[in-house]
Amino acid sequence: MNRAALPSRLARVREAMRAADVDALLLSLGADLPWLSGYVAMPLERLTMLVVPAYGERAVLVVPTLEAPRVVPVPDVFEVKPWGETEDPVEIVSGLVGKLAPSAPVLGISDRAWSSALLKLQASLPQADWVAASGVTAPLRAVKDAWELEALARASAAADRVAAALIAGEVKLIGRTEQDVSAELARRLHAEGHERVEFAIVGSGPNSASPHHEPGARKIGPGEAVVCDFGGSVDGYCSDITRTVFTGPPPRRLERIYTVVAEAQAAGVRAVRPGVPCSDVDAAARDVITDAGFGEHFIHRTGHGIGIEGHEDPYIVSNNSLPLSPGHVFSVEPGVYVPGHYGVRIEDIVAATEDGPSVLNQASRALTVVDV
Amino acid sequence: MNRAALPSRLARVREAMRAADVDALLLSLGADLPWLSGYVAMPLERLTMLVVPAYGERAVLVVPTLEAPRVVPVPDVFEVKPWGETEDPVEIVSGLVGKLAPSAPVLGISDRAWSSALLKLQASLPQADWVAASGVTAPLRAVKDAWELEALARASAAADRVAAALIAGEVKLIGRTEQDVSAELARRLHAEGHERVEFAIVGSGPNSASPHHEPGARKIGPGEAVVCDFGGSVDGYCSDITRTVFTGPPPRRLERIYTVVAEAQAAGVRAVRPGVPCSDVDAAARDVITDAGFGEHFIHRTGHGIGIEGHEDPYIVSNNSLPLSPGHVFSVEPGVYVPGHYGVRIEDIVAATEDGPSVLNQASRALTVVDV
Repeated sequence: MNRAALPSRLARVREAMRAADVDALLLSLGADLPWLSGYVAMPLERLTMLVVPAYGERAVLVVPTLEAPRVVPVPDVFEVKPWGETEDPVEIVSGLVGKLAPSAPVLGISDRAWSSALLKLQASLPQADWVAASGVTAPLRAVKDAWELEALARASAAADRVAAALIAGEVKLIGRTEQDVSAELARRLHAEGHERVEFAIVGSGPNSASPHHEPGARKIGPGEAVVCDFGGSVDGYCSDITRTVFTGPPPRRLERIYTVVAEAQAAGVRAVRPGVPCSDVDAAARDVITDAGFGEHFIHRTGHGIGIEGHEDPYIVSNNSLPLSPGHVFSVEPGVYVPGHYGVRIEDIVAATEDGPSVLNQASRALTVVDV
Repeated sequence: MNRAALPSRLARVREAMRAADVDALLLSLGADLPWLSGYVAMPLERLTMLVVPAYGERAVLVVPTLEAPRVVPVPDVFEVKPWGETEDPVEIVSGLVGKLAPSAPVLGISDRAWSSALLKLQASLPQADWVAASGVTAPLRAVKDAWELEALARASAAADRVAAALIAGEVKLIGRTEQDVSAELARRLHAEGHERVEFAIVGSGPNSASPHHEPGARKIGPGEAVVCDFGGSVDGYCSDITRTVFTGPPPRRLERIYTVVAEAQAAGVRAVRPGVPCSDVDAAARDVITDAGFGEHFIHRTGHGIGIEGHEDPYIVSNNSLPLSPGHVFSVEPGVYVPGHYGVRIEDIVAATEDGPSVLNQASRALTVVDV
């Protein structure tokens, strides 16, 4: 975490809150809290909540007493209010909100805050109007600063090293289960500097046609497509890369699909420049696949933003007209999935710069047979 | 997952919904969904939601198209409704709710469903009354069936083997960072059959006084307390064990604290029998610590239920009057934390049976010096 950036982030958030008529943000699980405070809430039932008033009052981090020692104080940004095991944190948060000027405040709650917490807060603050905190925070968080761009580049470089090992045939595939290979990819991500591994999808043979396949007991055979999509975080910022390799020369149609997906991926990347709507990047990739006759098999959007969260704004999807800005970082990951047979996906993380795309992943995208 | 149990669980849930006047459950992230359907929602921004009407209609699993191949159908329990990338899943869920009889339905949403999803659903269904799904599901989920008890015992046994290695001095401590030891504990949990590792707290020296310490770059020295608290899941059910070891003979006061915590832990376990309120188990452990003069340093509840989720009902806390039933499974984990100096915690998972406590963890609780 780059704590030096926190006070200026808080100032920008407060400015955006005032512009949006949001009286307080209530930040809990998800990326808003660490982005603004450096603190990551534990994903458990005890409520952690940073109350950020738009005007005047200091921000207060309401945190379980037993987790208070985990908090690194940032006095310019927030004070800490621990709550004991038999206290009611909803009452404490409501009390803090009650000190704000408006009697019917507009409150923005973290997208990922538990619904059970929101329901209790709604009951405790019946006059309040509730909105998603991301309405304020997401556009700010989506534009990465220099420190964040470096962190994302480090994460992508670490994931690249694992992808390079896969492509070089250092990860044995044939005869092993998907689960086993997934565990090895996770170990390698850790060894390359990831503090957290979020996922390591390994979809082989017909399972490669399931974009979010859960790696299972299936043994990888020769002559199969193997979609490997893995990532985690380095210094709190996420990696996410997909490479599809083949455990034997692919049949002609699958080879054709690979070429089309690689062309689509490159076309999506080429479309990246400031001012271009996200939908145009999606269209650039999708058109290549549609023109090649595989449009019905590209069943997901082209990409998602990435930062402290693995998926965040901006989403590269056909109904998102948001224009790209320098500092936007996102995946470009078209795929073609033929149910029951095979699938191919190729994914890189791309940063939009004044000069166009900066591709953070450099592992080879060439069709690779790894006969291991 | 034990899919054979799903239809009878659904029947019991529907009965409880009718008794509680809840017209539909909307289940997303968290344990309710896998407990009832066998399906684990991905913790991402695309909405997955099982709509369970109390009467008549079949349950419907609304799931992103790209994740639909992950669903294992259970035709007696639910049908599958995939939604594409430019469709609105909130509209689909609202449509399903709109087919229910009441015009102002009471809807129970998963505790862990994202607040952003709840806010959209509230806007889309303004007549609905919202409650936490756990009001219906938690008491049912808290009482484990025979298959679940076996799964929890397997998970505890796997965690025990890692704890035994720690106690036997097979895990090098002195001179290594907490992070490093944490990573080794995680690797060992995987090697012992955990499909997921949720946490591996290693708090050494003064960090042992932080109950939920985040393992960091601190190097473990000789003559320190090291609190190791780790767990994950085996076959979808959680483990959670804490052992505190010493990298040299502890000073007399710390030795005394260890003895007191071990006695408190044993007293908590002994208090377990059907009909006893959760608060009595907390009191049994707490009284030992308070009587020994360390009450102010026992800063958390005595335990939490465990199952598909690491923390769930029943909570072993002083303000919970719920009487224990056979099939309740929970941790008993008192601790004493002296800020700036050291802490001790000892934790086992315990199942309540007709005959009293059945302790699922068997790793030694004796004071252990591991001079490695």
